[in-house]
Amino acid sequence: MNAPKDFISVADWPAEELQALLRRAAELKRLHRKREGHATLPGRTLAMYFEKPSLRTQVTFEAGIAQLGGQAIQLRREQVGIGTRESVEDVARNLSRWVHGLVARTYDHALVEGLAASATIPVINGLTDALHPCQAMADALTVVERVPLDEATLVYVGDGNNVAASLVLLWAQLGGRIRVSTPASHRVDPVYWERAEVFAAASGARIEWVEVPEAAVDGADFVYTDVWTSMGQEEEGEARRQLFRPYQVNEALLRAAPEARVLHCLPAHRGEEITSDVLDGARSLVFDQAENRLHAQKAILERTLGEAPAPL
Amino acid sequence: MNAPKDFISVADWPAEELQALLRRAAELKRLHRKREGHATLPGRTLAMYFEKPSLRTQVTFEAGIAQLGGQAIQLRREQVGIGTRESVEDVARNLSRWVHGLVARTYDHALVEGLAASATIPVINGLTDALHPCQAMADALTVVERVPLDEATLVYVGDGNNVAASLVLLWAQLGGRIRVSTPASHRVDPVYWERAEVFAAASGARIEWVEVPEAAVDGADFVYTDVWTSMGQEEEGEARRQLFRPYQVNEALLRAAPEARVLHCLPAHRGEEITSDVLDGARSLVFDQAENRLHAQKAILERTLGEAPAPL
Amino acid sequence: MNAPKDFISVADWPAEELQALLRRAAELKRLHRKREGHATLPGRTLAMYFEKPSLRTQVTFEAGIAQLGGQAIQLRREQVGIGTRESVEDVARNLSRWVHGLVARTYDHALVEGLAASATIPVINGLTDALHPCQAMADALTVVERVPLDEATLVYVGDGNNVAASLVLLWAQLGGRIRVSTPASHRVDPVYWERAEVFAAASGARIEWVEVPEAAVDGADFVYTDVWTSMGQEEEGEARRQLFRPYQVNEALLRAAPEARVLHCLPAHRGEEITSDVLDGARSLVFDQAENRLHAQKAILERTLGEAPAPL
Repeated sequence: MNAPKDFISVADWPAEELQALLRRAAELKRLHRKREGHATLPGRTLAMYFEKPSLRTQVTFEAGIAQLGGQAIQLRREQVGIGTRESVEDVARNLSRWVHGLVARTYDHALVEGLAASATIPVINGLTDALHPCQAMADALTVVERVPLDEATLVYVGDGNNVAASLVLLWAQLGGRIRVSTPASHRVDPVYWERAEVFAAASGARIEWVEVPEAAVDGADFVYTDVWTSMGQEEEGEARRQLFRPYQVNEALLRAAPEARVLHCLPAHRGEEITSDVLDGARSLVFDQAENRLHAQKAILERTLGEAPAPL
Repeated sequence: MNAPKDFISVADWPAEELQALLRRAAELKRLHRKREGHATLPGRTLAMYFEKPSLRTQVTFEAGIAQLGGQAIQLRREQVGIGTRESVEDVARNLSRWVHGLVARTYDHALVEGLAASATIPVINGLTDALHPCQAMADALTVVERVPLDEATLVYVGDGNNVAASLVLLWAQLGGRIRVSTPASHRVDPVYWERAEVFAAASGARIEWVEVPEAAVDGADFVYTDVWTSMGQEEEGEARRQLFRPYQVNEALLRAAPEARVLHCLPAHRGEEITSDVLDGARSLVFDQAENRLHAQKAILERTLGEAPAPL
Repeated sequence: MNAPKDFISVADWPAEELQALLRRAAELKRLHRKREGHATLPGRTLAMYFEKPSLRTQVTFEAGIAQLGGQAIQLRREQVGIGTRESVEDVARNLSRWVHGLVARTYDHALVEGLAASATIPVINGLTDALHPCQAMADALTVVERVPLDEATLVYVGDGNNVAASLVLLWAQLGGRIRVSTPASHRVDPVYWERAEVFAAASGARIEWVEVPEAAVDGADFVYTDVWTSMGQEEEGEARRQLFRPYQVNEALLRAAPEARVLHCLPAHRGEEITSDVLDGARSLVFDQAENRLHAQKAILERTLGEAPAPL
């Protein structure tokens, strides 16, 4: 099994391809920091369809394709008018004639899947309500830069959201050790969890759900959290803050994990899911994580756009 | 007569230059599909002034200049403030100092002409209320890929708008055979029609207006339509739908043209000027047409920016 | 003393570095006009954070980095959310991981300084309420193309704003001769004026404030003005028009400077700070000035991004 056309979910990619992406990302990071040229995609154009602007996702993809010698083309939502001005299928078929790849950051996961199904060019999931595979790749890179994935325990604490689902799937594919600590009402979507268990059976990964956060982080090498209120859930804010309060990553919680480094995909709501002292403290790897978005995605761009057949 | 500085109307370009553009567009298409580099405009910057965002026009110009090794610079309408913040002349004179070309997509045709008159850099008409020359070039490429222009009959059915005017002018220049079927009240602007007749007298082109669509499409090799209600005419929508109803391109109309392929410059209003079964059917060439925007415009960019004198 | 990391104020740069920038700008202008390639920053990415779109600043930076072989990445204000979505420090630290430089055009000067302090990448001041150093560099280039700075008298007439402050600082650094004519209530910020006097004592520059404009422009080689009402001061418009009326640059005022060329950083309010006949007349150098934004900034980009250490 080779790499599929699209990068929609890490579940679609074979483990050895994911490992190769991580190795290439580390190499691209080395080149970037040494300012050695790595224009492996000259003349390639990457369309970017973002339903919501985002600092990290947008800048890292745009800078990434530029550093690889290609160029990004920003599509505005009202310009494309998916579903109103033109159908998903027609947008995908049009773009496939002109550009070499598409990054889509949408609310609805089915929209990214629909674009990928109709496009002949690679489609990359820049973030949906269901999954955030590029973030998980950056996170895995951040871990393996320090310790092999199967020798470290990563504990995700908080809401079982798109980031959590992608982490579990990726760790399950790669034979890692991951614990997820969420309220029982906010576990990772069982579709993804069950898929991860199938991967884990083959890879030797250890994935666990531990409801009580103090128990979950015991002995953790990495403690990861994300915001409790994602975009579109603002009206539930207060109720969610009550529910997730015990899952705050703070110094008290981290007493059970004295060696743990702290991860967060940013931006953070300081004082909610994480305290400022932890986020800004010596344990924090959050800017390394943010940087690794760039390198992980450049590896994904190279692999998908570089290997793709010619347009049409 | 050589190529003029600007690409505002196909009427301004000599027929042999237009033919050369079509040949080069076909070559650029071959290179694009084979993924062979064709960075013929390295370091060139193309400003894009769009009064209204558009998927096809904007992406094809932006991807086109990128694939030629240059870069696009998007100008937002409120940023430029033509006529309010700064005069047409001053905007044109400023841009001429910094960038190598300008694509303008405006409502008012006189604005593109004004920019071209004051600019020392090439100005390309990306679409105005009066003319759409880049679309016509893409359409001619789509036809000549299949049959020489003087051996095929193209029938345009519907509103005698900017697309129709540019088609007539281009076919007249190139010695093609074109019939236009519109209500008597919505014929192509006589200024352009009369100009086309002058070209036709020299080139041997055959251009005709045939009011009744069933008669017009008889024996057609290509049947072309466009939306009935252009941007800015929405309030006349219902009246226009009544008027143009007999001009809908559907299977019934196409019985008179059993061999005809179908063209549409997109986006379509399915169920109005064309039925879904025709647009999505085996006769349809609409995505080939859309693709050819890219290649035709790259040839235009090369010829204008590549030949232009240095800035100022 | 070498060039500092950032280009926030000409006061931070040693005079010999500023002179070198002007020489390089002239060379880059020659290359641009001859269409000779000068891709000295291949693969470099420049983030652009503009709180307000601007034609000249935005296009010249974007075209400039493109012509140097790099690429610009536009950051929208709501996308970055400085101070709301993410702190100044965190934005600067994130960007430092991904891109090679940042141009910021902000209202608050302290924001550019804050970004520079937290960023490891170069930060360039694209315009703040306090200073406009890139404009001053373009202006100096426009002057030295015609006559050495210490042999010409430049007279700035009008409001002692950010443009005036940067001109005074730069002329003081470079040993030039500058007179500033403003109402006593609207002199250049004394912080900058006093700093300029210190520079002048070392460089031999002559800087003077002359309240009466007719006296100020006597014997001038260049007369420079700028709008009276800057962005954010619109509500004071009528009061300012009254106050500054005697400072209008018109033919009557210029009788005292019969040889003077006229400068304005554009866009102009014709009939307020300058009359149309002067702005569009034979004395006017305003489009040369506007062009020189491009060349001056390319020299600044080369010097800062080219010399910067690798990311992080």
